[in-house]
Amino acid sequence: MSKLDQALEAVDANLDGSLERLFELLRIESISTDPAYKDQCSAAGQYLVDALNEIGFDASLRLTPGHPMVVAHHDGPEGAPHVLFYGHYDVQPVDPIELWDTPPFEPTIKEVNGAKRVYCRGSSDDKGQLMTFVEACRAWKQTSGGLPCRVSILFEGEEESGSPSLDRFLKENADELKADIALVCDTSMWDADTPAITTALRGMASEEVIIHAANRDLHSGYYGGAAQNPIHIISRIMSALHDESGRVTLEGFYDGVEEVPDDIKKQWAGLGFSAQDFLGAIGLSMPSGEANRSVLEQTWARPTAEVNGITGGYTGDGFKTVIPAQASAKVSFRLVGKQDPHKVIEAFHKHVEAMLPEDCSVSYIGHGRGPATQLDYNMPELKKAAAALTEEWGKDAAIIAGGGSIPIVGDFQRELGMASLMIGYALADDAIHSPNEKYELKSFHKGARSWARVLSALAD
Amino acid sequence: MSKLDQALEAVDANLDGSLERLFELLRIESISTDPAYKDQCSAAGQYLVDALNEIGFDASLRLTPGHPMVVAHHDGPEGAPHVLFYGHYDVQPVDPIELWDTPPFEPTIKEVNGAKRVYCRGSSDDKGQLMTFVEACRAWKQTSGGLPCRVSILFEGEEESGSPSLDRFLKENADELKADIALVCDTSMWDADTPAITTALRGMASEEVIIHAANRDLHSGYYGGAAQNPIHIISRIMSALHDESGRVTLEGFYDGVEEVPDDIKKQWAGLGFSAQDFLGAIGLSMPSGEANRSVLEQTWARPTAEVNGITGGYTGDGFKTVIPAQASAKVSFRLVGKQDPHKVIEAFHKHVEAMLPEDCSVSYIGHGRGPATQLDYNMPELKKAAAALTEEWGKDAAIIAGGGSIPIVGDFQRELGMASLMIGYALADDAIHSPNEKYELKSFHKGARSWARVLSALAD
Repeated sequence: MSKLDQALEAVDANLDGSLERLFELLRIESISTDPAYKDQCSAAGQYLVDALNEIGFDASLRLTPGHPMVVAHHDGPEGAPHVLFYGHYDVQPVDPIELWDTPPFEPTIKEVNGAKRVYCRGSSDDKGQLMTFVEACRAWKQTSGGLPCRVSILFEGEEESGSPSLDRFLKENADELKADIALVCDTSMWDADTPAITTALRGMASEEVIIHAANRDLHSGYYGGAAQNPIHIISRIMSALHDESGRVTLEGFYDGVEEVPDDIKKQWAGLGFSAQDFLGAIGLSMPSGEANRSVLEQTWARPTAEVNGITGGYTGDGFKTVIPAQASAKVSFRLVGKQDPHKVIEAFHKHVEAMLPEDCSVSYIGHGRGPATQLDYNMPELKKAAAALTEEWGKDAAIIAGGGSIPIVGDFQRELGMASLMIGYALADDAIHSPNEKYELKSFHKGARSWARVLSALAD
Repeated sequence: MSKLDQALEAVDANLDGSLERLFELLRIESISTDPAYKDQCSAAGQYLVDALNEIGFDASLRLTPGHPMVVAHHDGPEGAPHVLFYGHYDVQPVDPIELWDTPPFEPTIKEVNGAKRVYCRGSSDDKGQLMTFVEACRAWKQTSGGLPCRVSILFEGEEESGSPSLDRFLKENADELKADIALVCDTSMWDADTPAITTALRGMASEEVIIHAANRDLHSGYYGGAAQNPIHIISRIMSALHDESGRVTLEGFYDGVEEVPDDIKKQWAGLGFSAQDFLGAIGLSMPSGEANRSVLEQTWARPTAEVNGITGGYTGDGFKTVIPAQASAKVSFRLVGKQDPHKVIEAFHKHVEAMLPEDCSVSYIGHGRGPATQLDYNMPELKKAAAALTEEWGKDAAIIAGGGSIPIVGDFQRELGMASLMIGYALADDAIHSPNEKYELKSFHKGARSWARVLSALAD
């Protein structure tokens, strides 16, 4: 029996113990956004340090101005690649608590349509996911006494609160953390049967814009028709962000945007994605974005401009005939390819200022900015990991992209010059960030088996 | 000493007591648009009933489906004209509360540039104004035991929320309320020294529009680029309300709009109005409305479309990458001449629906609607009242128009066949509908004296 087969057998044999260990971690209420849970966050980190040391890692809790990081190292065979695994032990708050069917921090197994699920806050995002890797390492160590690769681990405790300590921690520990490739386990399968590797994520540039007109709110009877109305101005600015074909009008916005290669487009077409189902689930029927692009392109491979918030004047019940002194909007641009977030914001400022009447002014509040990430489709590690996943799940691994942003992937690229393979076993209906979050037992079990295989494949 | 002079002397002697009575009324938080203040609205009405009964009126509170009306009557000498005085005891909401320098419902006297002012919500609009008439009647009664005219009074409690009960109330009580002429006290002086009679007012049609897209709020990473964003839709709809020359684009919008007669234009030109000062006082410098129209035309004689409120998505501090399920705007149209408010709203609906994507929907909330009004410039009562005002203020009364809407004037015309003289003592900088609303003590004092004179003049 190969070393890999032995490790896989150990994953199977360990399943009950693996679940017990996962449950211990899930019971720790590590809500990072709420200062009341500070000690619980540290406790979750310490739990992982102990678990990793028990397996044979050299693991420690690293203090930061916020919640601590867990860093662990394990040697690999001579010449084997060095991988850095990333996950996060912090979780989202649980409100609205009344919508939970079981206590949010008491892991509860339920069988739904013949499949067992673990219900608990963090079961999918991201404690269940990161434990698949820990358990894969445990099985390898148990059966072979070592790991196929040199493995470092970084578990963060602030992912759900914007990772305020991460950037500096990566900078200060770059030598220690830099590996050949990162493995990031915070994404989903394509569907319940089809594993996936996410190879591209959109970046983001976001900005708040406030248009100032009169020095006070005005009565629209006395001043209407003569005084500037900042709601009109901001409406014009926002509506001019797109042309009639849905393209973003900012100057130079599409610089650095590349077309999706034909073979990838073909693969996406083969995924059986239904735009009708995707939009139908949210009560819509027609793709609204750039004309002549598929929904997968629109959400994975094309940049966007979205107004995420707008406000001005009287917005309560009833009516107030006011011309407000100011109106504001929050705008975010999703970026792809090599689009430069700072240049996009510059072009946005130009767009705003070109439409601003002379006697009005504008102010801005900057928000998050990060470029897109895009893996090289021909990277050998990608092909090896895909083959390993295909072997485990009996279906071709989908090579997909994601519309959202996972800032860690950009940080690894920027700070450590390191590409990331994003592999995760979550499902779209896991209700992450919502009441009744769950993780499929199949995701947990086959996830651990998948990592056992990926470690082996990367070492080949 | 003439009866009039005695009455004027009493107004002067009563001033401290008059102010105390005004303050009692101002302290009642009678915000008509917010159901939370229902009892306070009734209390303000009751306060006025008591005050009028005390003077010798036959006053009562009349219930409506909304806030109550105050109706009062007082006999006049044989053959004297019958006047109906109108004011409103309800006030605008106070947000943004943080911009008030003193508590909005605690009347505070401050001296600015040697002139005393009363700061309080409603001090100018319209409690301070209506109390000038009550105090003029008090002085007449006190000194002559009667009033020069037969006087009826109607105080409304829903003026700031579109007067939903007024139409029916006038219909049902037409015989009781019909007089020879109405006196409406809800307008401004021409400037701090020049009294004015307003002879034309813009009408209004207002409507709230809500655009519904997805059936829930969406994450802009997963859905951005494919899902309809209702903020984009509403921005497009609002920005398309005007063309580049500032004209309103609704079909048939200008039907019934007439040019101002040349002689009136000439009189307006002689008023010494400075567009630069008018706009400069509010921090602006360029008329924003229809090209090639003077500011007086823009605000007095031309119709407008103004967005008075807009909201959608996340509007709190920080950023949330949401595509909201809905976005909404409150829009009002100021109307002139013979524009039909209902036709304007119909055209607005057509405009909205023509720009609505097929898989989105729209809902509306109707608000106030009333046509514009225009007085006959040769009416004898107009000349008598103008002479009385000229006598009190020592400057020719200006015969002007107003940009705001006072629907009651149209209602009086339509329901009771009664013209209205609009005389008020507010100033342009009273900040009505805004934080730090104020009323000049001079307006209050000489306003009461002016009414004492006007009652006398109309009786001649």
